[in-house]
Amino acid sequence: MRDLEKLGDAAVAALAAAGVERLLPDAASPYLLIAEHAGNIVPAPWRDLGLAEPYLGTHFAVDVGVDALTRRLSQTLRAPAVIARYSRLFLDYNRPADEWDFMRPDLGGIPVPGNLAVDAADARLRKLVAWAPVERAIIEAAAGRRALISVHSFTPVMGGVKRNVDIGVLWREQSPFVNSVLKTLRTQGAEAGFRIGDNEPYDWRQAVGYTLNRHGLQQGRPCLYLEVRNDLLADPETFERISRLLENAFATVAMSLWPQSAAAV
Amino acid sequence: MRDLEKLGDAAVAALAAAGVERLLPDAASPYLLIAEHAGNIVPAPWRDLGLAEPYLGTHFAVDVGVDALTRRLSQTLRAPAVIARYSRLFLDYNRPADEWDFMRPDLGGIPVPGNLAVDAADARLRKLVAWAPVERAIIEAAAGRRALISVHSFTPVMGGVKRNVDIGVLWREQSPFVNSVLKTLRTQGAEAGFRIGDNEPYDWRQAVGYTLNRHGLQQGRPCLYLEVRNDLLADPETFERISRLLENAFATVAMSLWPQSAAAV
Repeated sequence: MRDLEKLGDAAVAALAAAGVERLLPDAASPYLLIAEHAGNIVPAPWRDLGLAEPYLGTHFAVDVGVDALTRRLSQTLRAPAVIARYSRLFLDYNRPADEWDFMRPDLGGIPVPGNLAVDAADARLRKLVAWAPVERAIIEAAAGRRALISVHSFTPVMGGVKRNVDIGVLWREQSPFVNSVLKTLRTQGAEAGFRIGDNEPYDWRQAVGYTLNRHGLQQGRPCLYLEVRNDLLADPETFERISRLLENAFATVAMSLWPQSAAAV
Repeated sequence: MRDLEKLGDAAVAALAAAGVERLLPDAASPYLLIAEHAGNIVPAPWRDLGLAEPYLGTHFAVDVGVDALTRRLSQTLRAPAVIARYSRLFLDYNRPADEWDFMRPDLGGIPVPGNLAVDAADARLRKLVAWAPVERAIIEAAAGRRALISVHSFTPVMGGVKRNVDIGVLWREQSPFVNSVLKTLRTQGAEAGFRIGDNEPYDWRQAVGYTLNRHGLQQGRPCLYLEVRNDLLADPETFERISRLLENAFATVAMSLWPQSAAAV
């Protein structure tokens, strides 16, 4: 894009600073919450990537409901959180840079004009503005944590198929943490009337990830992707019930696995 | 939907009449052109199925560019055409009624509110309004024709993959008609600088169809789906070049296969 060449260093630094939010960075929780898809902002110089506004409210642009859910869990668990504010369409922090959907050229066939032919200078600028600040924030916040929870949401129907779970726990390597979360959430979830998915609605072992590959698995740090059906989060009462379920379950797990941690919950 | 119960017979008849357009019904061409996905109208009582306006301009709702292309080919070939005016999201005439996307509940994961729980009365009404008039128009117009051409368009990129054809000829049963169109379009297309796909960008033998299964194959009538890249049709100059290529190719085929037909071109 033409305008990008005019961006000075100060403007780039300001865009980078606006791309990430850190919640409770000094909290002593064993957990770090990460929300890579919480935001739907496209930095102004990129002009919404040429998309009409309604597209920026879809799951292609943002994990609907995750911003509010992550803030809630951070507050109640007193856990630090890293929230990426730029749309996954601008740059998908949770994809390796060489994946086709790192800067996704289409929404299931609907072209994204600004992503059809991203040149090297544009890609470099997006990494500076969107990738680097999130990377730095996660590295800083993850130091010393016992486990990472990456918070996501999914659509209730995909390709005509209704997904038959409400909350999914996606994992790649088993660990006491993963096992404990699954066991606890299954029990407490059943009581609360929610269906818990074990590597559902999709299986992390068959899917590409980035954040938790890099900051979790490769660091030997237990981790999981938490996936919540986004239409459930849109209803205030159900949002409240799901939040309570999740905070109770993660508190239970922390007390069980790390009882010595004074700041477990 | 609540409003639907109030629709009287006259209103239903008016909606059905508005759902289809017949071009040059009395022309003596060997061809019938069919455009099942030419329109993006959702009849008013269905309130755009709850979708924001930009969605109704996408390929999920309509084959972009096909309305204009079909009118042009009808004029220059002096061939009758049946044009469905309602969006494929309202009811996809080119799908069997028991297919999941006959009334598609999502656009690749973006829910279509009005299609998430279509009840029997709603489905019956949509068939009356959208399916029946197109069915009748095609049956009437197809009588005595030598071949059916169903005109469609496709998106240049799907799931991140760029499609590497410009115009596709999709067939299920070989015939002198199909072979002649492929041969002629390949030759004339290469001269005009367009890439012609033989059962590409997708293969009808691996895909669900309805219109040509029913009105073509099952009647022993040669037929094909013509697929044109929709971004090419959006450029007036390229639209003109593609239209000229197609009308020349189909005229060549008609003269070669049915020279006795005075109204071949």
